[in-house]
Amino acid sequence: MAASALSPPEVPMELHVSNREKLLQSIRHHLAETSRPLQGFVLLQGGDEQTRYCTDHLELFRQESYFAYLFGVVEPGFYGAIDIATGKSILFAPRLPAEYAVWMGKIKSLSYYQERYLVTEAYYTDEIVEVLLDQSKGIEKPLLFLLHGLNTDSNNYSKPADFKGMETFQTDVNTLHPILTECRVIKSDLELAVIQFANDISSEAHVQVMRNIKPGMKEYQLESTFQHHTYMYGGCRHCSYTCICATGENSAVLHYGHAAAPNDRTLQDGDMALFDMGAEYQFYGSDITCSFPVNGKFTSDQSLIYNAVLDAHDSVISAMKPGVSWIDMHKLAETVVLDSLRKGGIIVGDVADMMAERFGAVFMPHGLGHFLGIDTHDPGGYLKGLKKPTEPGLRSLRTIRELTEGMVITVEPGCYFIDALLTPAMANPKTSKFFNAEAIGRFKGFGGVRIESDLHVTATGCKNMTKCPRTIADIEAVMAGAPWPPNE
Amino acid sequence: MAASALSPPEVPMELHVSNREKLLQSIRHHLAETSRPLQGFVLLQGGDEQTRYCTDHLELFRQESYFAYLFGVVEPGFYGAIDIATGKSILFAPRLPAEYAVWMGKIKSLSYYQERYLVTEAYYTDEIVEVLLDQSKGIEKPLLFLLHGLNTDSNNYSKPADFKGMETFQTDVNTLHPILTECRVIKSDLELAVIQFANDISSEAHVQVMRNIKPGMKEYQLESTFQHHTYMYGGCRHCSYTCICATGENSAVLHYGHAAAPNDRTLQDGDMALFDMGAEYQFYGSDITCSFPVNGKFTSDQSLIYNAVLDAHDSVISAMKPGVSWIDMHKLAETVVLDSLRKGGIIVGDVADMMAERFGAVFMPHGLGHFLGIDTHDPGGYLKGLKKPTEPGLRSLRTIRELTEGMVITVEPGCYFIDALLTPAMANPKTSKFFNAEAIGRFKGFGGVRIESDLHVTATGCKNMTKCPRTIADIEAVMAGAPWPPNE
Ligand SMILES: [Mn+2]
Ligand SMILES: [Mn+2]
Repeated sequence: MAASALSPPEVPMELHVSNREKLLQSIRHHLAETSRPLQGFVLLQGGDEQTRYCTDHLELFRQESYFAYLFGVVEPGFYGAIDIATGKSILFAPRLPAEYAVWMGKIKSLSYYQERYLVTEAYYTDEIVEVLLDQSKGIEKPLLFLLHGLNTDSNNYSKPADFKGMETFQTDVNTLHPILTECRVIKSDLELAVIQFANDISSEAHVQVMRNIKPGMKEYQLESTFQHHTYMYGGCRHCSYTCICATGENSAVLHYGHAAAPNDRTLQDGDMALFDMGAEYQFYGSDITCSFPVNGKFTSDQSLIYNAVLDAHDSVISAMKPGVSWIDMHKLAETVVLDSLRKGGIIVGDVADMMAERFGAVFMPHGLGHFLGIDTHDPGGYLKGLKKPTEPGLRSLRTIRELTEGMVITVEPGCYFIDALLTPAMANPKTSKFFNAEAIGRFKGFGGVRIESDLHVTATGCKNMTKCPRTIADIEAVMAGAPWPPNE
Repeated sequence: MAASALSPPEVPMELHVSNREKLLQSIRHHLAETSRPLQGFVLLQGGDEQTRYCTDHLELFRQESYFAYLFGVVEPGFYGAIDIATGKSILFAPRLPAEYAVWMGKIKSLSYYQERYLVTEAYYTDEIVEVLLDQSKGIEKPLLFLLHGLNTDSNNYSKPADFKGMETFQTDVNTLHPILTECRVIKSDLELAVIQFANDISSEAHVQVMRNIKPGMKEYQLESTFQHHTYMYGGCRHCSYTCICATGENSAVLHYGHAAAPNDRTLQDGDMALFDMGAEYQFYGSDITCSFPVNGKFTSDQSLIYNAVLDAHDSVISAMKPGVSWIDMHKLAETVVLDSLRKGGIIVGDVADMMAERFGAVFMPHGLGHFLGIDTHDPGGYLKGLKKPTEPGLRSLRTIRELTEGMVITVEPGCYFIDALLTPAMANPKTSKFFNAEAIGRFKGFGGVRIESDLHVTATGCKNMTKCPRTIADIEAVMAGAPWPPNE
């Protein structure tokens, strides 16, 4: 069998051209609606290379996501402008010193950048003022639309472009952010194709991990296996996020894998594994979680929890289509999980009563899913004045919007046994009654299960872009060496 | 054959305890010599986690190097102090919110940190003022020695510790940096053992790359192969620096491999490869370059250049011992390379005349080597008022110090055919006479060769910590499948 059925596809630069056209249309529409003149420039500043602390250790550069969306530029130190009146796109490249050719590589010409990135014109960054003034002849203080707005996942604000001579221009820091963010929420077919490839190679890498895992290994060896597969055969130099390779009780730590919990446990026979890993291809990401027993065979308790989560995952996907509320989907997932736990004798009582107490959040404290694109937590979850809910579980939702055709959103229900949540819930008179304490005791140290797929919302429903084995039968077969995808 | 002969060793925390003891001795000695009281605290601030631009994308945290040296702490958000009077070491850990247990993992107790990091006491970061005041009873404004000084590779200054309540203390930002930096220059046996392991696993990974390379592959596939080997079998989550996987003419780009030149060329039959890759293990790095033909067989031109560089590499290593000047070593490497090129008919004239014109820098514009430790370019190259030379080649030296027992320094001579340097040198009347223009023409697009090993300076000479095949015979044999290290 070949090591991979895939190879990295060419991504046409027209993807970013069409992203710019979409923004242009959208901002012109907005200006017209608010009776403002159709002129000025959208101006964005790309990312700069970063060194580590005081040293000359260069971190591998990754372009700022809004800039990547509009211009597709992989190099640091750029600015980009779009002329709202004419639709012209302009890139400003850093003027590199002659020494660059010795240390860093060929110094590319402006026409190289113009052709590679399919922009109307290209200049140097030290020409911004002059060029923008020249293009807006007759306007004394041309208007720049700068990017400034809240990222509702980080609570940080994007940094508006800044350059020497800014005071020559009028600036508007309020208009662009919501419009450009909304453009990013709805994916084009070209964008979907890249996200699909990131999903394909990552799905294959997850299968590779399932086939190679065994007790006695270290968690990080599976991280290494995943990264190697997606880079070697998919050309993915970046992961979308730090790999979460959690086994045993670590699988109840939602964001395991960071430097203070660095995937360094030794796998035990009988452990569940929860692997949340996704590769990024040419800026666009994937975000996939597979849960399975390290030794390849589910116990009955593992099956019970796994199928509870899989039912939630499948129920949500069956219900998803334009117009559906994401809060309803979150609650659907909770309901399905709670009902399964009730049927399994782990909790007792009426699921509607449990839902009224937000009891689902004890087992699934995180949100059901989030937009996915150039960022793993793609922005736009709370545009248009939406406010975050405050109730347990719901307050972790990264969006509460209605689904719309063209969104890509993760569906990632989970069920975890987290002492820090179970202990207070078992002590709380409002929720203690729901527990079968004896059964819960059995799951001490069990960890948790999450199943995460990336869904594209279509006109009539949704399409699962993730292609991992999901049923217990398929997982056990693949882990025992059966082909995947199965032979028809 | 097993995939690796190695496995990740335990690194005793005594390594960092002894680093602290060394600093304490050194700073006490300095204070005594300058007739200052032996009191006050060394206070360092560890690194914080960073998010990417405005998003919640967390970069994988890597501890600040001076803090890592003294405390070995892998977690972000710490401060550390050393009481100069008593020798007590104190860690200040961030007070984590209850939610941390749900999302990030178990909240560790202060006694956990105290035991894990072998410090005298541990507190929370919000207790710094109180604790330090309490420990210096009777002193109105205790003195803090903070880290502030120039990194001569980046030209950036280290950021002194900062916390709420700083104004309660006197601060000294001049004393600590040179003393602590000098401590880092001379490696202990415990440090050497970790650098040796980083070298062992990286050497093995380079051999793995040599065995698997073939025309038609992409450069990044060898980067992936290297990273996978060092993580899978060596537990190395970080590389010391971004992998340079340069083939063909890219091998003349000294710092190839960054985001704007991302190891994405397809390997051609007949190419030379120059792979500069090193893994980091528990903070300590390695820095290794291997050069070899992609197809496994050196041509006569490739042999000529390769052996010129290998002779320089071996000559320097034979000459290295305490008291030797690094500038002399750099010039020795240049002389050997020039002499080989002259014998090979590529350049003509007297090597002494060439050296007088600094002609060696045309073929080797970088410095011969640099200190290696917790940083790839470990600090301390220009302590004690040393000034950087200004002449070509020499001005790229990251140190000009005399060798001292316990230093770890790279030896990395190279010979490159760089248009941006050859063209002006061939036009310059002072150097044009040295070229055999016809022969030089043959090397258009050849790229370059670098051979880089990590050397430990011993009492009487030096020890090569790097274990890669270096002779043409060994490289060709290994690439054809012979065992490495060879059977005795
Ligand atoms: Mn996710
Ligand atoms: Mn080096």
